Amino acid sequence: MEETARWLTSEEQHAWRSFVRLHEKLGGRLARLLQTQSKLSAADFAVLVQLTDVPEGRQRYQDLARELEWEKSRMSHHIARMAGRGLVVREECLEDARGAFVVITAAGRAAIEAAAPLHVEAVRSLFLDHVTPAELRTLGEVSERVVAKLDEDQS
Amino acid sequence: MEETARWLTSEEQHAWRSFVRLHEKLGGRLARLLQTQSKLSAADFAVLVQLTDVPEGRQRYQDLARELEWEKSRMSHHIARMAGRGLVVREECLEDARGAFVVITAAGRAAIEAAAPLHVEAVRSLFLDHVTPAELRTLGEVSERVVAKLDEDQS
Repeated sequence: MEETARWLTSEEQHAWRSFVRLHEKLGGRLARLLQTQSKLSAADFAVLVQLTDVPEGRQRYQDLARELEWEKSRMSHHIARMAGRGLVVREECLEDARGAFVVITAAGRAAIEAAAPLHVEAVRSLFLDHVTPAELRTLGEVSERVVAKLDEDQS
Repeated sequence: MEETARWLTSEEQHAWRSFVRLHEKLGGRLARLLQTQSKLSAADFAVLVQLTDVPEGRQRYQDLARELEWEKSRMSHHIARMAGRGLVVREECLEDARGAFVVITAAGRAAIEAAAPLHVEAVRSLFLDHVTPAELRTLGEVSERVVAKLDEDQS
């Protein structure tokens, strides 16, 4: 395998490593702020954001897991913990045995609404304030293209 | 708080959300591939990459934790598990009570060397193959700038 690996050039290596560090550092910092300011983990926040984006705040376990790229077992455990805190409820699906739904509760909506202004301020001060509009556009375009590709490969 | 929040414009929102999805999806996919192909978690891989980057493959717990933006307790637990698998060892620091070192072992180096060609292929096929050199340059520049800012804020 090693002989045929398409190793990265030094430019690629440098950019990729910087990008990974950004991921680790920005992700870590935002996660810690969320936890401290809003008592939500990054995982809680990702689930709540996803559920506020879908009609009636409800989505099948399997679709939620695919959206977040989580293993099903991780999703089940995490949703059980969030349900224990009243942020979501599990809703059985009578007409379709394939899967239950996860539904955001009023408390879940209240939690994310309370977290949102603090989170947006952190996103601005830690990230957006240091990125030009043109750079942000490039970032958004690249992200959409790669995500579309990842979704395609999966199906 | 809500009245004064600097909410994102729709362009900013769109780009930021795409970027977050890229992190979730690309991070999740690479992590699953690493686990399947190389029996390493993303966290194992991040620690091993970091240790191969420092002299003699050794770094203080606290420096390693800061580099990866992990809480100290997470780092301690994770290093204990990796030490149990022989990938790293813990080295007490006699002349300085402030902290022990984490040191990569020969088995740790072998694990990351075995994982590297598979990982680089995944990074290419899932990400780099869909990004132009100019876009990658922008991505690298933005990443470096934001990471430098995050490091500054922390000190």
